[in-house]
Amino acid sequence: MYEEFLRRAIQLAAENVESGRGGPFGAVIVREGAVVAEGANHVTTQHDPTAHAEIVAIRAACAKLGTFELRGCSIFSSCEPCPMCLAAIYWARLDALYYAASKDDASAAGFDDSFLYAQIPLETSMRSLPTHRLLGEEGDRPFAIWRKSVSKIPY
Amino acid sequence: MYEEFLRRAIQLAAENVESGRGGPFGAVIVREGAVVAEGANHVTTQHDPTAHAEIVAIRAACAKLGTFELRGCSIFSSCEPCPMCLAAIYWARLDALYYAASKDDASAAGFDDSFLYAQIPLETSMRSLPTHRLLGEEGDRPFAIWRKSVSKIPY
Repeated sequence: MYEEFLRRAIQLAAENVESGRGGPFGAVIVREGAVVAEGANHVTTQHDPTAHAEIVAIRAACAKLGTFELRGCSIFSSCEPCPMCLAAIYWARLDALYYAASKDDASAAGFDDSFLYAQIPLETSMRSLPTHRLLGEEGDRPFAIWRKSVSKIPY
Repeated sequence: MYEEFLRRAIQLAAENVESGRGGPFGAVIVREGAVVAEGANHVTTQHDPTAHAEIVAIRAACAKLGTFELRGCSIFSSCEPCPMCLAAIYWARLDALYYAASKDDASAAGFDDSFLYAQIPLETSMRSLPTHRLLGEEGDRPFAIWRKSVSKIPY
């Protein structure tokens, strides 16, 4: 069953390139043995650098289920998720991740996955992205409001 | 000028909590001294765990400019981005990042940012997310199609 869902993700990835809709990545979200939602990479055609297959699938599954968490669901991805998608999988509270190709396979095909995995853990001053911290004290004001809020919805 | 844009991001974050629209995070994308797009966290109200302020702002800026990259733009975030948003900033090819509160401030307010920064660099077997690799060879098929494609749009 796991292989069936993963083959579907790989098929979505292959069809996505063949149809010209985007990069070679597909993902499927499954709950209790049934597909909840599918996604493929639409970065270039939808003008959205965050429209990776996993993000597309997570957004579609949440929209379908009317929730902002996917506990009880698993994600099947044609490729090991990039750091953006891996963190999104955590934020979505998915139960488990299944993948086929590795991040090194993705890098060999021209994608920045391994580079990003190396960048994320670095101190801000060591990253290739110029990063500057300002207004540290003022920046805590929204958190102070959040802590006091009685109507907030934690996530 | 930098402080002005960052104060706007902090204001968006504060208003977002006060209005009940989501978490205490705001972001602004700027090009040549002018705001291109703004974003605030809408995870709970839009049923989208990826709707962090930075992602919302990146998607809005790309939609407005009709592009999937934001070279020439900078992002101002009320808080140090989580790994999902940091990777999205790289994928969007933004020139620079300015932020106010730190990821430790976010964690102190109840958000998983520091936990995720610790999870991302781990080997898959060491992460709290159960992760399984299957069908490694079949997984390379979409990349083989991608490499041969003459109509692909690299990103």
